[in-house]
Amino acid sequence: MDTYDLITRNAEEVVTEEEVRELADDPDGKRVYVGYEPSGVLHLGHLLTANKLIDLQEAGMEVVVLLADVHAYLNGKGTFEEIRDTAEQMKAQFIAYGLDEANTEFVYGSEFQLDEEYTLDLHELELSTTLNRAQRAMAEIQSGETAKVSHVVYPLMQTLDIEYLDLDLAVGGLDQRKVHMLAREELPELGYDVRPALHTPIVADLTSGEGKMSSSEGVTISMEDSTEDLEEKVNSAFCPPTRDPEGDLENPVLELFEYHVFPRFDEIVVERPEKYGGDLTYQEYESLAADLESGELHPADAKGTLATYLDDLIAPGREKLREIRD
Amino acid sequence: MDTYDLITRNAEEVVTEEEVRELADDPDGKRVYVGYEPSGVLHLGHLLTANKLIDLQEAGMEVVVLLADVHAYLNGKGTFEEIRDTAEQMKAQFIAYGLDEANTEFVYGSEFQLDEEYTLDLHELELSTTLNRAQRAMAEIQSGETAKVSHVVYPLMQTLDIEYLDLDLAVGGLDQRKVHMLAREELPELGYDVRPALHTPIVADLTSGEGKMSSSEGVTISMEDSTEDLEEKVNSAFCPPTRDPEGDLENPVLELFEYHVFPRFDEIVVERPEKYGGDLTYQEYESLAADLESGELHPADAKGTLATYLDDLIAPGREKLREIRD
Repeated sequence: MDTYDLITRNAEEVVTEEEVRELADDPDGKRVYVGYEPSGVLHLGHLLTANKLIDLQEAGMEVVVLLADVHAYLNGKGTFEEIRDTAEQMKAQFIAYGLDEANTEFVYGSEFQLDEEYTLDLHELELSTTLNRAQRAMAEIQSGETAKVSHVVYPLMQTLDIEYLDLDLAVGGLDQRKVHMLAREELPELGYDVRPALHTPIVADLTSGEGKMSSSEGVTISMEDSTEDLEEKVNSAFCPPTRDPEGDLENPVLELFEYHVFPRFDEIVVERPEKYGGDLTYQEYESLAADLESGELHPADAKGTLATYLDDLIAPGREKLREIRD
Repeated sequence: MDTYDLITRNAEEVVTEEEVRELADDPDGKRVYVGYEPSGVLHLGHLLTANKLIDLQEAGMEVVVLLADVHAYLNGKGTFEEIRDTAEQMKAQFIAYGLDEANTEFVYGSEFQLDEEYTLDLHELELSTTLNRAQRAMAEIQSGETAKVSHVVYPLMQTLDIEYLDLDLAVGGLDQRKVHMLAREELPELGYDVRPALHTPIVADLTSGEGKMSSSEGVTISMEDSTEDLEEKVNSAFCPPTRDPEGDLENPVLELFEYHVFPRFDEIVVERPEKYGGDLTYQEYESLAADLESGELHPADAKGTLATYLDDLIAPGREKLREIRD
């Protein structure tokens, strides 16, 4: 796979293609980041962006993981010490999951977000950004009654993070696109460079195929799941024999194959008894999806295979969590 | 004059009377502040609040003058060093004007507003304050298109200044009332005490008697005015023989007597030739205003007297400015 394709595979959006092509021409040592609020247990939401970071490491880039302890603190997630404990568990799980420790820099927000220079730059951005513009960058649309002042300040902090972490590329879920677009507009206001961004797709709810898989609602898959948990969750997943179910529905089983399994394995083997046609082997997602559509691959076999590979992916982090907690 | 009357005289608003009465019972060493964006030349807008600070010093309080260099820097008023030079001129003029140097603490915003603890508290306030609430505290009503994010952050900084400067009382022009009301609501959110506030009145435009005397529009009186400048400005002032001109108009000559002259002099003498009735002497503003209304005091004599006393008030600061600039 050529470097540009590796860098952008499974990205829902590339902003801009030209800028990312330039990075792909000379990716060595280029710095890319994702920011996470520290959490004790990684779930598929984290792993989706982590998969992209692993791609980027393979392409030669340096990965920066921002552990947003200041935001966690402000959100009442405990003292800075407690949050740091949580974040250290998160780091261990990321490494267990496959991030290359030698090429991953974990940075706490508190290491720079409370510095004088950063604070002064933040106030400059506050002065150069209209309220309306900042409101359009809020993660969720909120009215003035429910929106807090922090909702218009945080996008400006994320904007500065990109500069202060000396990044060449920002990665996030599609929910970060509005913030990254704001950053592209506002960084030049302070004389800083515009940076490209990659956005990972949204995976649908596992059971219904609707909307977005979420750690707060519905079923999610996390580093805490046992092999049995995974089998049970994947078996009850929505999996019609099509890539494109009716209406707004998606096929979350196919999405998990596409975004989580294929990027991490060279070959996927669906084990079947000889009497049902014997094993099926796939090097690429498209072939598996086509077989599901044609009926060659039964949804039940797809689910069983998915559970096995997810278990492989999760096992090292699960083990690491167990060690930490013992 | 009893202490409560001294503390509150000429205040347009006292929030709350009960709290200020408690301060008046034991004013010694209590800390009160006004914040100013550093400016090279003081004008009547500054002196109106300075008069109140002098009253409060006489009542036994300690005065804190916040020199808002961070805001001046953000507003493009120069480097921190240039702003500090400007602010040092401002300090010298305040002392020349009559603030007691031994009981006045001049504090630069940059001494504490960029500290980690302050910044973290600011982010907490941003999280606990709705956008709508903060917008209601903005100095001027602005739409989302013209309002900047800074307009909703600055009132929260002013809120914290009251805590970080360890104040017992906040003083400001009536344009600060919305910010002080926000501060009263929000300080307890962080576990800090509510502080009372005093607001000085608005003085009308000198020439027209309309609206508000402003340093940016119309005629203002400043520490740079010569004796001749003052005579000329005051002579062309709007001064009908009444306290209450028609419509929304005010009598700015009477206002300057009330808020600027009488608080600083025990006795005002209107010098007149014997043939015009000889000198008039006033211990209090009400008598002078009554004489103007009755026709006993002619507007031209009132203006001449006002120019003389304003010149007395301004002379030491004007001299100080000259020294600094030579």
